[in-house]
Amino acid sequence: FPLVTLARAIGVLVSALVLTWNVHYRGGLAILSENKDLIFNVDELLNKFAQPSVDDSSPEKFHEKNLSAKMLAMLAYKSVSGTKIFKKRVHLVLQFLALILSLIGLYAAWKFHIDKGIDNFYSLHSWLGLACLFLFVCQWIIGFTTFLYPASSRNRRSVVLPWHVFFGIFIYALAISTAATGILEKLTFLQSNNVISRYSAEALLANVLGVLIVVLGGVVVLATIT
Amino acid sequence: FPLVTLARAIGVLVSALVLTWNVHYRGGLAILSENKDLIFNVDELLNKFAQPSVDDSSPEKFHEKNLSAKMLAMLAYKSVSGTKIFKKRVHLVLQFLALILSLIGLYAAWKFHIDKGIDNFYSLHSWLGLACLFLFVCQWIIGFTTFLYPASSRNRRSVVLPWHVFFGIFIYALAISTAATGILEKLTFLQSNNVISRYSAEALLANVLGVLIVVLGGVVVLATIT
Ligand code: HEM
Ligand code: HEM
Ligand code: HEM
Ligand code: HEM
Ligand SMILES: O=C1O[C@H]([C@@H](O)CO)C(O)=C1O
Repeated sequence: FPLVTLARAIGVLVSALVLTWNVHYRGGLAILSENKDLIFNVDELLNKFAQPSVDDSSPEKFHEKNLSAKMLAMLAYKSVSGTKIFKKRVHLVLQFLALILSLIGLYAAWKFHIDKGIDNFYSLHSWLGLACLFLFVCQWIIGFTTFLYPASSRNRRSVVLPWHVFFGIFIYALAISTAATGILEKLTFLQSNNVISRYSAEALLANVLGVLIVVLGGVVVLATIT
Repeated sequence: FPLVTLARAIGVLVSALVLTWNVHYRGGLAILSENKDLIFNVDELLNKFAQPSVDDSSPEKFHEKNLSAKMLAMLAYKSVSGTKIFKKRVHLVLQFLALILSLIGLYAAWKFHIDKGIDNFYSLHSWLGLACLFLFVCQWIIGFTTFLYPASSRNRRSVVLPWHVFFGIFIYALAISTAATGILEKLTFLQSNNVISRYSAEALLANVLGVLIVVLGGVVVLATIT
């Protein structure tokens, strides 16, 4: 299916850009950095495969992870072959993975803020992120109890399904908006503090990343609904 | 149709918050301000009905207008009664209005930057905004030529239509992301320069506005696709 292939290609590109941003510009991965604290190490263990990690100075590096898992989970029904129940389990496990990664990311950002004496939850970015995570938890619980165990009647399932799909896509869109605001915020901090300049290669890279994440969102949603 | 009613209600709330932010916190409307320049006056004429306007220090006040027109245009097929060709014209005129307002907003922001010697088009916000406007222009031209004049064959129209709907929704989502990043950026500037504090009433108001715009986006899309 060409849309799924396109989504994968952009996904790989996005991952490469995230990695470049972190490793090349933002001080490298946590394994290589001194001064890292325990949570960040725990996180390291959870992210072997080329996902961005967190050095001692940036909560935001956590936040990109759950997008990949989420995208795969949404496309699971399209791209995984096998029985219905197998597909259901893949979907569920991937969404669970995305959820756990997000919650670890949230904890890390929060802990980082506490440790450095920075305010918590003041920004639109953090509010969108919290709303996204809250809905994500609800969606997961309702999805699980409705479709898998104890599972509702066939009739109720078919009533819930279109809402499940709609909220699934809405939560995904919320995650995309959260990521876009997060990237903008990070760059604005760096630029306001004169760490990097407005037209620097790093800023351009991060902007390209932001635009690609939004485009990827469109392609994934299109692939999901068609 | 309850979803359309809900969208209208949130739309009114969003307009009220935008107005409160501008009038109460950000120095009032341009009619009342000295020092306003010509473009801003021209804009004033175009925005009689309680839309936010621009004082001498903020390009961003322009940017919220086109969202309302866009929302109405997307819902036109749902909420306007009459013949098909009449609905088509309402849709087209409203999208045209939204387009023109956006382009004026872009010109104002750009002129404001030039006048103050601020860089142009460096931010993710501005990139998303430009992408949105570019696609908007394309969509409008293709929509016009395909569905109205000279108009394609019935067969071609039915092939183009689902893409038209998908891109229409994608452009709308892009506008929502642009607005969210714009609000975040404006607040980050104000907070970095210590004009307002992180938990100030103004910051909370703007965050609520941002979350509501995203929720409104979800409701409008849901109302459009059902
Ligand atoms: C879906 C993905 C994301 C979610 C759910 C999310 C969630 C959050 C939350 C809840 C906070 C507040 C933490 C606190 O105040 O204790 C936060 C902070 C932050 N995030 Fe994210 N984030 C995401 C993606 C990103 C991305 C992609 C970046 C940048 C590349 C980023 C950069 C930041 C920064 C700089 C902060 C600290 C400033 C602030 O509180 O707004 N985030 N994030
Ligand atoms: C936060 C967690 C979840 C999110 C964001 C989510 C999202 C989605 C999305 C976007 C779709 C549409 C995909 C498509 O039709 O190709 C979908 C379909 C579905 N989901 Fe979930 N989901 C979540 C959790 C769950 C759970 C826990 C279950 C229970 C096993 C579940 C069961 C289903 C089923 C049965 C479908 C219908 C697939 C079909 O036949 O088209 N979901 N979900
Ligand atoms: C769909 C709606 C919007 C579009 C298409 C849009 C587009 C743009 C563009 C193209 C620029 C760059 C101007 C230049 O550099 O010459 C810009 C700048 C700006 N906008 Fe928006 N905007 C939108 C909504 C908003 C909102 C809702 C706000 C805040 C409340 C906002 C705040 C700003 C600010 C502070 C700047 C100057 C900083 C920068 O260039 O990023 N915008 N906008
Ligand atoms: C940037 C401009 C435009 C945008 C963003 C846009 C967006 C949309 C959206 C979201 C829909 C789906 C609405 C629904 O089905 O209720 C739609 C439907 C449609 N649009 Fe547009 N549109 C634009 C310009 C135009 C133009 C110029 C025409 C030509 C007259 C046009 C003709 C149509 C037609 C015929 C439909 C199908 C309505 C139906 O029967 O469901 N659009 N458009
Ligand atoms: O011009 C039009 O094209 C579509 C449809 O005829 C294509 O299937 C539609 O609803 C119109 O009003």
